[in-house]
Amino acid sequence: MSPHAVLLLSCPDHPGIVADVAQWVASSGGNIVHAEQHTDREDGMFFQRVEFTTDSLTFDVAELDQHFAGVAARHGMTADIRLSGWRPRTVVLASKPPHCLADLLTRAYTGDLDLDLAAVVSNHPDNAGITERFSVPFHHLPVDGDRAGQELRLDTLLGEVQPELIVLARYMLVLPPWLVDAWPQQIINIHHSFLPAFVGASPYRQAHDRGVKVIGATAHYVTAGLDEGPIIDQDVTRISHRDDVTELTRKGRDLEVLVQARAVRAHIEHRVLTWGNRTVVFE
Amino acid sequence: MSPHAVLLLSCPDHPGIVADVAQWVASSGGNIVHAEQHTDREDGMFFQRVEFTTDSLTFDVAELDQHFAGVAARHGMTADIRLSGWRPRTVVLASKPPHCLADLLTRAYTGDLDLDLAAVVSNHPDNAGITERFSVPFHHLPVDGDRAGQELRLDTLLGEVQPELIVLARYMLVLPPWLVDAWPQQIINIHHSFLPAFVGASPYRQAHDRGVKVIGATAHYVTAGLDEGPIIDQDVTRISHRDDVTELTRKGRDLEVLVQARAVRAHIEHRVLTWGNRTVVFE
Amino acid sequence: MSPHAVLLLSCPDHPGIVADVAQWVASSGGNIVHAEQHTDREDGMFFQRVEFTTDSLTFDVAELDQHFAGVAARHGMTADIRLSGWRPRTVVLASKPPHCLADLLTRAYTGDLDLDLAAVVSNHPDNAGITERFSVPFHHLPVDGDRAGQELRLDTLLGEVQPELIVLARYMLVLPPWLVDAWPQQIINIHHSFLPAFVGASPYRQAHDRGVKVIGATAHYVTAGLDEGPIIDQDVTRISHRDDVTELTRKGRDLEVLVQARAVRAHIEHRVLTWGNRTVVFE
Amino acid sequence: MSPHAVLLLSCPDHPGIVADVAQWVASSGGNIVHAEQHTDREDGMFFQRVEFTTDSLTFDVAELDQHFAGVAARHGMTADIRLSGWRPRTVVLASKPPHCLADLLTRAYTGDLDLDLAAVVSNHPDNAGITERFSVPFHHLPVDGDRAGQELRLDTLLGEVQPELIVLARYMLVLPPWLVDAWPQQIINIHHSFLPAFVGASPYRQAHDRGVKVIGATAHYVTAGLDEGPIIDQDVTRISHRDDVTELTRKGRDLEVLVQARAVRAHIEHRVLTWGNRTVVFE
Repeated sequence: MSPHAVLLLSCPDHPGIVADVAQWVASSGGNIVHAEQHTDREDGMFFQRVEFTTDSLTFDVAELDQHFAGVAARHGMTADIRLSGWRPRTVVLASKPPHCLADLLTRAYTGDLDLDLAAVVSNHPDNAGITERFSVPFHHLPVDGDRAGQELRLDTLLGEVQPELIVLARYMLVLPPWLVDAWPQQIINIHHSFLPAFVGASPYRQAHDRGVKVIGATAHYVTAGLDEGPIIDQDVTRISHRDDVTELTRKGRDLEVLVQARAVRAHIEHRVLTWGNRTVVFE
Repeated sequence: MSPHAVLLLSCPDHPGIVADVAQWVASSGGNIVHAEQHTDREDGMFFQRVEFTTDSLTFDVAELDQHFAGVAARHGMTADIRLSGWRPRTVVLASKPPHCLADLLTRAYTGDLDLDLAAVVSNHPDNAGITERFSVPFHHLPVDGDRAGQELRLDTLLGEVQPELIVLARYMLVLPPWLVDAWPQQIINIHHSFLPAFVGASPYRQAHDRGVKVIGATAHYVTAGLDEGPIIDQDVTRISHRDDVTELTRKGRDLEVLVQARAVRAHIEHRVLTWGNRTVVFE
Repeated sequence: MSPHAVLLLSCPDHPGIVADVAQWVASSGGNIVHAEQHTDREDGMFFQRVEFTTDSLTFDVAELDQHFAGVAARHGMTADIRLSGWRPRTVVLASKPPHCLADLLTRAYTGDLDLDLAAVVSNHPDNAGITERFSVPFHHLPVDGDRAGQELRLDTLLGEVQPELIVLARYMLVLPPWLVDAWPQQIINIHHSFLPAFVGASPYRQAHDRGVKVIGATAHYVTAGLDEGPIIDQDVTRISHRDDVTELTRKGRDLEVLVQARAVRAHIEHRVLTWGNRTVVFE
Repeated sequence: MSPHAVLLLSCPDHPGIVADVAQWVASSGGNIVHAEQHTDREDGMFFQRVEFTTDSLTFDVAELDQHFAGVAARHGMTADIRLSGWRPRTVVLASKPPHCLADLLTRAYTGDLDLDLAAVVSNHPDNAGITERFSVPFHHLPVDGDRAGQELRLDTLLGEVQPELIVLARYMLVLPPWLVDAWPQQIINIHHSFLPAFVGASPYRQAHDRGVKVIGATAHYVTAGLDEGPIIDQDVTRISHRDDVTELTRKGRDLEVLVQARAVRAHIEHRVLTWGNRTVVFE
């Protein structure tokens, strides 16, 4: 079966966009198998995800961008077309806690997530064992008192691997802005709180001390501001006075893993658009 | 502001439907403000909800059905167009428990749900007080050993009121098939379990005796089969061994009320399509 | 049936407390029907809720405090004994939004919550209608440019009613510290966010602008710090990019109502202990 | 640190049990660090879990059962004492789907679950790879047209390994009653529906065809009746018309894994009592 094409677009809202896009797909020989749209009335913006067949296209699939350019220009669109079945070359950064990393390794191994795991990077040696059990290269980049040097070694490694996706699977070092800027909307971070509550270090300790009755986890694209990037997914679980910080940390692990998997899946399936500091996540 | 038109359609899936509908809206002078579609690949069926403006239509809004007829015929569609702001004339049937009824009375009063409550009917007198506090007519139709007679009196009353929506808000008598058939897809029932578990009487007792760890509530269209109609919404809550039948009943009340409100809202907003015994509920 | 006695106690943890309390109940002629305890190991504190029968007590039920005083002194306890079936004289403060108030009125009317609603107070006239439908006195205390004067009139009213519980059911004015201090742990506020996120005004607008994927509601005891008191209950619901501020506000209403009812119920049933800025909520 | 002792007991309810048990712990030199109790008033039964320190016991820890025997006899108790830190020798049975097995392997590896994985058994070869990556012995026991023979080979294997816990991590063959009876309350099964809905084969297909709006997963002790044993834990997730059977299966995987982990954890921590076909799961 030929892959589907997935078109993600955004533009100022005005009449006729839906008809124009549908018309273009039909006239190109495609059949729309799924379409979802969203209008942000406050900002006057239109967003759409259109998935269509490519096996009867009247032109070569490689020319999709070029053929859509006319429609895009007419409506002032930002548009991005990708073929289904994308399996991004991925680098995972993980510090000591193994669960988020282990979950990605397992899901990639069983095929639950379509990831090509090219490298795992850590500032600690602890996760070498689990990584190597899944035959993924493990790179130990310790800080050793030289944070700037470590960042440069990380940059070099990323430059060599050229990942299409970087997942911070409980990586406890904040990336420098210049490095973040080099991989726009390609870095997903898992923060162990329901942001914007409990930014920064030790969110489970913060949650315990504030006495909240729910804890959460957040997956977001990384931007220069700490824990401030566009949120892709969040989830929470109820807790009680019985849960000390150790227990919050344990319960939170299951949340972090789930939220991470959902966000990575949405990203792989080309279902996420960002608009300012918010996301549109099509279903 | 002119109301929006809301078009709900279903038909066998094939290329070109989306473009054709969008083209028809645009050429009619409408602007699509929201569109959602669904393709059931297993059954080869296409479903769509399209909401569009009517203030620049090239024809009278009353002629919408007639103007769409050509598109509908071309694709073998079942289509239903309704204007936004529908406030259905509604009859609520409730036996002794007051919570589902009281919630509808309150939401209609505060404007949370756009309901024109024309009558409350009960086989018990208990809910007369709460109903009359909200100035809604209360009709006491006791069974008094004559079930068939009570059903005829109910039928007469419904014939007089001509409701556009009937809500069984914990009405504990099963309606006879001939009465159900007279109001197709206009009767919503709240069953106090997550169907298909615990059909019939005393579901909280059944749930307790089975030792489940979640209980639920279900809102569904009423069909001739007991608790078997198309499900509109369901929800659940966690319980524990500490919850006896009384406590399950209490916790369940909050679920029933929420599920009822969501289902009624979806129905009012013309977001529900049925297909066989299932529903498509657009968001 | 005689009421049960409900003993809530807290003290520094050490061996023998459970045995000593159980022994005291048994020797007093009571039978423990429910007991729950919690040890905060970090703070070295012990908390317990013990519910026991009173129909075979060897002394008058009015002497419970006095008879327990020896045990309390031996362990340095803070202890509070209340008989079951408490139906607190309650004042509800509500500004314009009617849903939290309407829910309390309905639950009190149907008996779902054991509240003696003595008065509803508002700085707006809007909720007079719904309040009077339930035959509860409504007091309109407008600010009219004189905030301090309004607070004094509120204080006078509370002094006359002598409530045992005050619920801020979406009351949009911050109470002055001197008034809060006069009713320690008797004022429950509903804040329409999952605190500590989105403190202060317009939390749904804040949530929308941050682009979160869950919204929440929080019930907490009121202290001098804005939205900073001990949290009794919280809950959340998933949202998506489709939800604008109006829709968040609508979805949030159902959360606020539920969280408010759960917190009020826990308070009435004498299940809440506070410890610093946190709560122990027994089940 | 000495391990804690964990006492699980049940008996007909009557006055004085709590005091008697607490008294016994205190007089034995133990300090209660956690206690939870439950009274089933309908059945007149009392259940308790008491966790206490053992480092100052006045007798050898191995004599706990013997020293408690007097208390147990006095109240007609069924009692079971286990030391904390139990790490049961475990056999996992899994057919083709890898996710439940992979999750147990990962949690055992990272220490999230305290399991001594002694063997993985399957009627298919598919899971050999993932099992061996975690250095756990894999036993392929194919049916090959001889179901009775396969059951005998499984019985032999279990007899050799002498597991303290058997987890059916999506094992698609029903165990024969004689084998189930040999391991009472030691076999936990994960069924991929919220029982009692959708018993038996293909529950996601059944759920799809019924058109439910939530799907679930259930962990229960295995008894002779198919999917009818005492439920330890259940959870659900919302679905919509967009989810076909493949998508239900995918979303269900995350539920199954979570419910399995929670049930296994409760079992390991000696927090589950069964009473008839129900469980008491202390927290």
